[in-house]
Amino acid sequence: MISKKMQALVDNNSVVRVMFEEGRRMAAEYGAENVYDFSLGNPNVPAPEKVKETVERLLREEDPLALHGYMNNAGFEDVREKVAESLNRRFETSFHGRNIIMTVGAAGGLNVALKALINPGDEVVAFAPFFLEYKNYVANVDGSLVVVSPDTSTFQPDLADFEAKITPETRAVIINNPNNPTGVIYSEETIRKISSILEEKGKEYDTEIFLISDEPYRELVYTGAEVPYLTKYYNNTIVGYSFSKTLSLPGERIGYLVVPDEAADAERLIQALTIANRVLGFVNAPSLFQKVVAECLEEKADIAYYKRNRDLLHEALTKYGFEVVKPDGAFYMFIKSPTEDEKKFVEAARKHRILLVPGSSFLCPGYVRLAYCVSYETCRNSLREFEKLAGEMDLK
Amino acid sequence: MISKKMQALVDNNSVVRVMFEEGRRMAAEYGAENVYDFSLGNPNVPAPEKVKETVERLLREEDPLALHGYMNNAGFEDVREKVAESLNRRFETSFHGRNIIMTVGAAGGLNVALKALINPGDEVVAFAPFFLEYKNYVANVDGSLVVVSPDTSTFQPDLADFEAKITPETRAVIINNPNNPTGVIYSEETIRKISSILEEKGKEYDTEIFLISDEPYRELVYTGAEVPYLTKYYNNTIVGYSFSKTLSLPGERIGYLVVPDEAADAERLIQALTIANRVLGFVNAPSLFQKVVAECLEEKADIAYYKRNRDLLHEALTKYGFEVVKPDGAFYMFIKSPTEDEKKFVEAARKHRILLVPGSSFLCPGYVRLAYCVSYETCRNSLREFEKLAGEMDLK
Repeated sequence: MISKKMQALVDNNSVVRVMFEEGRRMAAEYGAENVYDFSLGNPNVPAPEKVKETVERLLREEDPLALHGYMNNAGFEDVREKVAESLNRRFETSFHGRNIIMTVGAAGGLNVALKALINPGDEVVAFAPFFLEYKNYVANVDGSLVVVSPDTSTFQPDLADFEAKITPETRAVIINNPNNPTGVIYSEETIRKISSILEEKGKEYDTEIFLISDEPYRELVYTGAEVPYLTKYYNNTIVGYSFSKTLSLPGERIGYLVVPDEAADAERLIQALTIANRVLGFVNAPSLFQKVVAECLEEKADIAYYKRNRDLLHEALTKYGFEVVKPDGAFYMFIKSPTEDEKKFVEAARKHRILLVPGSSFLCPGYVRLAYCVSYETCRNSLREFEKLAGEMDLK
Repeated sequence: MISKKMQALVDNNSVVRVMFEEGRRMAAEYGAENVYDFSLGNPNVPAPEKVKETVERLLREEDPLALHGYMNNAGFEDVREKVAESLNRRFETSFHGRNIIMTVGAAGGLNVALKALINPGDEVVAFAPFFLEYKNYVANVDGSLVVVSPDTSTFQPDLADFEAKITPETRAVIINNPNNPTGVIYSEETIRKISSILEEKGKEYDTEIFLISDEPYRELVYTGAEVPYLTKYYNNTIVGYSFSKTLSLPGERIGYLVVPDEAADAERLIQALTIANRVLGFVNAPSLFQKVVAECLEEKADIAYYKRNRDLLHEALTKYGFEVVKPDGAFYMFIKSPTEDEKKFVEAARKHRILLVPGSSFLCPGYVRLAYCVSYETCRNSLREFEKLAGEMDLK
């Protein structure tokens, strides 16, 4: 009955989401406090108080027709200006309102960017491990996803493999920094190398290759490490941002795209993104929350909370003998599976009521993702189960 | 630089949106009170006070993590239940929460429905005149749009032409009731005939043809005329609803899809719609407004306001000699152009600072759309200009 493209998706429904339902089922069965659900990247630190205050103030002060009404498909002009100013202040960029397109989260933004750029058969490159939803987004525009193999020693991109996989058909490269699922931040050196590879290949093939940056975790950084702002390194860049993690608003679907004037054919590209926002059925980013985030651009949820979880878990898991690259950002840890087939490890963990996501869901088998955006108590209480698990796995 | 599909769209950007920008330009030049902008279907009656009260209460009472967090991609379960109960109460249906998928407005819902149903090359039938965006939505899934010619005597669908245009490739039929741009309500008789044609053709071709109903104007009815609830007439129905017009929340992007258990393979279809919501990048309908509309399901903006505009304009325009089918619903009037090429009429009207949309934007040339969701003063003050215009057009 349903379309062929959707049949495959229904048959193998997103593992992450299935785990989400499984977690709720186990919580009902064993009690939430006895289930260690590390499966979903759902912020557990409440939105900053200023979000609530701003909603209340806007409802008091603004004309409801304007507050809840249509606007240009790219978003409210004052909101776009404020976003540009905030970026310029924080990253020494020089954007104007016109360079910003407000979107229905980063997921909406990425789909809008791909719709504007990709013709059927065009190649879109992504670095494993990555959020597998990219595969569906590329399929929405009949693009062809090309996967760069992971460098599991550092989880910085394998640039030799990257260079080898760029062809005359390469239209875009998706980069996610800080990275889901590893929590690794791609260094400035990595970004410079990626940019120069794209410059050279673009010249060699006489093509314009776009770098699409997915940055919902930009503000979730624990080490003072810089997350390079890509438009300063490469002109043909579209930055996708979401307030889901920074302001703990994942359900509100609010984010934006940034296109620098330096991008090829920038003005027309911005028009295309604006129209794509409309024709894909987003129409515009939710209007009230456009106004809200514009007043909270330099607010952050309590990120120290995540750091505390990271430090506790990383130290303990390492002590128990698990191999984990210490994450600098996001709220994920990518653990090497003690078993070659990591699904066996996920299954063993589940017997301890620990829910993890297999690395194959990020095209990186042999690893599992732990999302530590959970309560400190959950992290602490999970340790004794992790220790038993390590014993069974015979890591020492 | 941009994709081929988007190039065409950028080159001939939606006339309605261009008019929107034009209206703002003229308002700046002549003063808003001297511009009669009837071009955009943007509600001008504020949201019911209960919307504001509900937002304030939810912010006070609800856990922000739940209020702004992720939920099942189909929406909050309690919200889906409440929507089902409200529909059952008002339309004597028998839906459960599982039959409801919360969406990013009706535009999001239609794209989700098409993604779930349409394979490349499948035919999707629509009745002219219709909202031209349907053409883009069908193109998003590489479907082929088949247009049923209008019956300009009543603007009820031309059922003979409809029957003739259904083929073995017909996968879906889009119906918009009450209709944009005519304001006509498709009668129960029309719906019964459409249903039986689909039943017969489905048997003849051994196919399941889906009826996709786009109903943002369902509650905007002025005559006590019934808008038939389609699931009661035809099993393979997906109803798309939006709160944009009823609650005057077009910017908030909140609506839902309804799939009855009687639809073919309903359970799997509901799964497909839920996953399509995710993979298209909507992820979920905005969370706060899901909770808000669930408390305002039987609220309405002040619809009498639109009726007053309708009555004033219809009486006057008819008196001046314009031909207009009196609309029973929505907030549009479809005026027969005195000139064969209605673009000439639109241009003549613009000289009087009256902004109308050519019928060719709805695949019905020879007519123009007037959207009377404007202030009563705008309607009243436009009359003398309409009268002059009628004189120039030599209607008497």
